[in-house]
Amino acid sequence: MADSPLLLPLREQHSRLRDGRLSARTVVDAAVDAHQRRGGHDNAYITWNGDGAVANATAVDSVLANGGDAGPLMGCAVSIKDNYGVPGFPIYAGASERLPEKWQKAGPVVETLLSQLPSLMGKTHTVELAFGGLGTNAHWGAPRNPWDELRQRAPGGSSSGAGVSLVGGTASLALGSDTAGSIRIPAAMTGVAGLKLTAGRWPIDQIVPLSPTLDTPGLMAFRVDDLAFAFEAMDPKGRKAGRGNAFDLDLADLTFGVPECYFWESCSPGIAETVETAIRSLESAGARIVTLDLPGAEEVFELFQRGGVAAAELASFLHTEDTGLINRLDRNVALRVEEAENIPAWEYVHRRQMIERLSEEARPYVDKVDAILTPTVAITPPALSDLEAEGEYKKSNMLALRNTVVANFLGLSALTMPVGRDRAGMPVGLQVIGGANEESFLLEVGRAIERKLGTGLDILGAPPAPHGSA
Amino acid sequence: MADSPLLLPLREQHSRLRDGRLSARTVVDAAVDAHQRRGGHDNAYITWNGDGAVANATAVDSVLANGGDAGPLMGCAVSIKDNYGVPGFPIYAGASERLPEKWQKAGPVVETLLSQLPSLMGKTHTVELAFGGLGTNAHWGAPRNPWDELRQRAPGGSSSGAGVSLVGGTASLALGSDTAGSIRIPAAMTGVAGLKLTAGRWPIDQIVPLSPTLDTPGLMAFRVDDLAFAFEAMDPKGRKAGRGNAFDLDLADLTFGVPECYFWESCSPGIAETVETAIRSLESAGARIVTLDLPGAEEVFELFQRGGVAAAELASFLHTEDTGLINRLDRNVALRVEEAENIPAWEYVHRRQMIERLSEEARPYVDKVDAILTPTVAITPPALSDLEAEGEYKKSNMLALRNTVVANFLGLSALTMPVGRDRAGMPVGLQVIGGANEESFLLEVGRAIERKLGTGLDILGAPPAPHGSA
Repeated sequence: MADSPLLLPLREQHSRLRDGRLSARTVVDAAVDAHQRRGGHDNAYITWNGDGAVANATAVDSVLANGGDAGPLMGCAVSIKDNYGVPGFPIYAGASERLPEKWQKAGPVVETLLSQLPSLMGKTHTVELAFGGLGTNAHWGAPRNPWDELRQRAPGGSSSGAGVSLVGGTASLALGSDTAGSIRIPAAMTGVAGLKLTAGRWPIDQIVPLSPTLDTPGLMAFRVDDLAFAFEAMDPKGRKAGRGNAFDLDLADLTFGVPECYFWESCSPGIAETVETAIRSLESAGARIVTLDLPGAEEVFELFQRGGVAAAELASFLHTEDTGLINRLDRNVALRVEEAENIPAWEYVHRRQMIERLSEEARPYVDKVDAILTPTVAITPPALSDLEAEGEYKKSNMLALRNTVVANFLGLSALTMPVGRDRAGMPVGLQVIGGANEESFLLEVGRAIERKLGTGLDILGAPPAPHGSA
Repeated sequence: MADSPLLLPLREQHSRLRDGRLSARTVVDAAVDAHQRRGGHDNAYITWNGDGAVANATAVDSVLANGGDAGPLMGCAVSIKDNYGVPGFPIYAGASERLPEKWQKAGPVVETLLSQLPSLMGKTHTVELAFGGLGTNAHWGAPRNPWDELRQRAPGGSSSGAGVSLVGGTASLALGSDTAGSIRIPAAMTGVAGLKLTAGRWPIDQIVPLSPTLDTPGLMAFRVDDLAFAFEAMDPKGRKAGRGNAFDLDLADLTFGVPECYFWESCSPGIAETVETAIRSLESAGARIVTLDLPGAEEVFELFQRGGVAAAELASFLHTEDTGLINRLDRNVALRVEEAENIPAWEYVHRRQMIERLSEEARPYVDKVDAILTPTVAITPPALSDLEAEGEYKKSNMLALRNTVVANFLGLSALTMPVGRDRAGMPVGLQVIGGANEESFLLEVGRAIERKLGTGLDILGAPPAPHGSA
């Protein structure tokens, strides 16, 4: 796996595909090979598209040989979370049964991605209706976190298959979605980089809705630099920007805000320490570190624990779309939807207004610094067996989401990048929070950090081989 | 009253004030005189500002004499609905007690108006928290509809004092607000013109909220031409447009859509007939009349009768703002708020989405024509005594709002203009519905209609003198 072309930076794949040093078919063959070796073990995909990807790659190579170019992501291996509609693919969104065919239609984000002719390796597992941060799913099982072969640990969710599709060697770019942390948590827990866009930056049409107020697309890849490449390739404004290395930010010119409270509480052993070490390393490289507590973080979490706005918005979807799903929900999802039944309309209105107010109040604090640094997830990915006791899922789920949900409720952009391992040997993510719609700048900040600290592949190496394999 | 300067077109007042043929003081003196004659009878104002207006007018005349000009509405007599904050004026928003002082602060609309130095005659009565279409108020009494001296009839609401302030001769322009018809109903019922803006066109900050989703400012005046003049003076884009008579629309170039269903049902005697006669008159002047049924009108009304979104949004305000008002509500308002307690959050979410969907579905129909013509209000302003029987208020209120709420839920602009009298001798309004944010064009359409049919003053003449007066 270490020599798989899928591990090459997307920029490198891009140029090699165009000068003939790499073919789309070679990429897909490596992905298919990885899937044969560990696909059943990883359980990243609900629908695998190996044959389709081979056919696409063959055609793409002909086009490339003729000098054709459908876009920057042409010939790259990608996976798509199964809450996005993709024509020709059944869609479950983590539910027990296929959703009505209308949800298979592609929305603008999938159209933008697929029009560049990447090789679509398949659709990845998600927590049912994307409503959960650990990555579990009573109907389909959880994808396996590749970083622990002894205990089966949570892969993070709700984009539970997305990170595993990367680490398992079947994709270089994974499309996911984030409502309270659903990109950043699985990215942190599987040791890859992840970008959550500001809600509203990219359209959410034809993504099965959890919370139309907060849902937003996002990307996962091995490096922040890969995220920057893919974001630029897919963002209507990003493609025009045409930035290059000439504009690389220097850490010595950056000021990072580090909260003293909230994000550091109740961290599993080694998590706070690893993130602190990363921050000290940035400081030693000249970055200015200032204390900055985001106002409203505690209020956000208190509101989130009471169901936020997503619980009622999901309940609305379940009550009004003719799917019958509401009677067959994963118990952990059903419990949260049931809580929403008791929220009166006026209380929901109040919550929406609270979120708007908190966003406004946070803005001047966010503007004071170039980015805010925190641990992405406070806890070690829990072993699935530990989640079975009464109340354990709820407790772990809330703690997993605690540090990420703040950026969602406050309307900010945010990314995560691997910076080391915790005491259990599991990957630790550094969360980098930026301003609303400041994705391009945030990615440049992340790239500057990555140049100093190294990529996740540098820091973590390869995951252990599946137990019992050669 | 017939020779009152307040009855002059705003354009005429504007030029006379500037060339010395009219003074601001003359305007205010006429308003004060009218208020002395019939202020107690009309009950249009909760706070009368005669002395303040005299002082303002005197100062304004000095400025005018020196060639100063603070804006197109300088020296005009205006009234402001008491749900807008105005510095120095107590604010009740129709409630039994004064609201906290923070609500007295001026929002952008009041700032834009007052910075032009009009003479503010006072703050007008409103239905409590603007939640009602008939104009009644258990705490403050209803303003008296000036067009029936025998029976005390509803003035329309919720901007209940706004229309009466015009007809009573104390203002040439009245600032009100509209969530489901609160500008157009009182305008139609008191025989003046009224403009409801598309929600979002003007900010609603510092207007005591009923429904932040649907609340929108609006204007009332004697003529559509006055509305056009005031809108241009107050709208950030309107002021730049600088349109004049050169751009007058010709009825022969216009196509009007007239619905066959919904708006014409259950009309009180003479209302449908009067509006039909007006439409035939436009047709005879060359306008093209086509049948156009707005899809979704019935759905809107069904949703509205179940509380729409406003009931829950008002309940949120009452539950979360520390006013204590919720325990002292006008019974007719309290009943509607209580109904909202039983709406679950998910149902509210669904209603918001329904409104968005219905707006989208209606857009292509609205785009087919230059405007849609309907009766503004289906019923004769009811006698207050007829509203006391169990269920009568609710029934009349819903019917009064039925034809206006459609434009609110579908996100459209709309105006009303007087076109005659019904069988009870009360004014009848023609509703002219335009596209979203198409206020400038809608007002030009309204002016074209007005040039053909005449103004409300032409059609209705002066209201009867208060019973027992000279």
